[in-house]
Amino acid sequence: MATFPLKAYTADVIMYDIIINALTRLVEFDEEELFYFLKLLKPRMLNKNDFILEAGEICKTMVIVNRGGLRYFSLNDKGEQSNWFAFEGEWLGDYESFLTRQPSSHFIQAIEATEIFSLSYDDMQQLYAKGVKYERFGRLIAENLFIKAERSRNELTSLPAEQRYLNLIKDHPDILKRIPVQHIATYLGIQPQSLSRIRRNIASRKS
Amino acid sequence: MATFPLKAYTADVIMYDIIINALTRLVEFDEEELFYFLKLLKPRMLNKNDFILEAGEICKTMVIVNRGGLRYFSLNDKGEQSNWFAFEGEWLGDYESFLTRQPSSHFIQAIEATEIFSLSYDDMQQLYAKGVKYERFGRLIAENLFIKAERSRNELTSLPAEQRYLNLIKDHPDILKRIPVQHIATYLGIQPQSLSRIRRNIASRKS
Repeated sequence: MATFPLKAYTADVIMYDIIINALTRLVEFDEEELFYFLKLLKPRMLNKNDFILEAGEICKTMVIVNRGGLRYFSLNDKGEQSNWFAFEGEWLGDYESFLTRQPSSHFIQAIEATEIFSLSYDDMQQLYAKGVKYERFGRLIAENLFIKAERSRNELTSLPAEQRYLNLIKDHPDILKRIPVQHIATYLGIQPQSLSRIRRNIASRKS
Repeated sequence: MATFPLKAYTADVIMYDIIINALTRLVEFDEEELFYFLKLLKPRMLNKNDFILEAGEICKTMVIVNRGGLRYFSLNDKGEQSNWFAFEGEWLGDYESFLTRQPSSHFIQAIEATEIFSLSYDDMQQLYAKGVKYERFGRLIAENLFIKAERSRNELTSLPAEQRYLNLIKDHPDILKRIPVQHIATYLGIQPQSLSRIRRNIASRKS
């Protein structure tokens, strides 16, 4: 795996705009700090359906999507249970497995041709040891992940499935174009048939 | 509200063992750093059923329980939906409302006579500005919260209710003694009648 092409950063900043925005949106890194961070990110191209994590493995890297999309799911007796998706500028990994160094019970698979940058556990610890801004970055990432997980958890216990679906497409208007409907159904905690019924009901109310 | 009684820290460390353990379990604060942290924590006694947060308010403090217990819940058309509980040494608050300064849609109520220590938003920012160890503490707290929320979310979509119940009492063997069964039911995302049936089934298999 090649290291981050340093030339590209100075010669063609556009190329990494999505990554740079994702990093600087949370913390005001100066150029040197940002450069140090970018150098630790390793690029990788994935074909559609490639896996970057399989159940039973320890999650060794957190990845950020530059182009494409990833799906995070588990297998149970009903089949695949989708838990998260990540698109351009979003981080993904089994954060629990990554932090605790315990095997994951999840899979991460590319849902289309995808370019990711990955950050290893050791490199992340190296960042944290380097200074307060990187610690702050880690804190803000974890806070945002918590808010997302907690909202989703509250919706599962408090909202009817139709409202959960409407919230999802409000937050991610393009999601139906990028993710097969059966994966959206399991993410919402419902059967694909129930999601089809909900979508028909919404369409009939609109017409 | 009185500030943290400094004398107590030196004269009677035992009294705050639970709090000190909760702080130093995550980060190795030296005595001065720990002392600075403790000074920002404001003690408060609550009677059973007292509220420290009501829906519509901004959550202004994160609190840690020294003695007693708290319940975090929302109201919907089916009644109260319990989302979290916190006991000795555990933090609680509406972290999303606290971080975003937006009104909470949740309530936090004492489930028994409870002593808490609270940390305000401004004091937390002051800690973060003071140094990397406090940032690290914030990061580790957020990471732990995320892992907890994510596990709970995964259980809601992946595990049958009986298994969710068994996991809960395995992690918190005393929870049935401290929390009314209807609150445990809504926390598990099921009806109280379903929880009663699950408990009868488990009891009949044991006998």
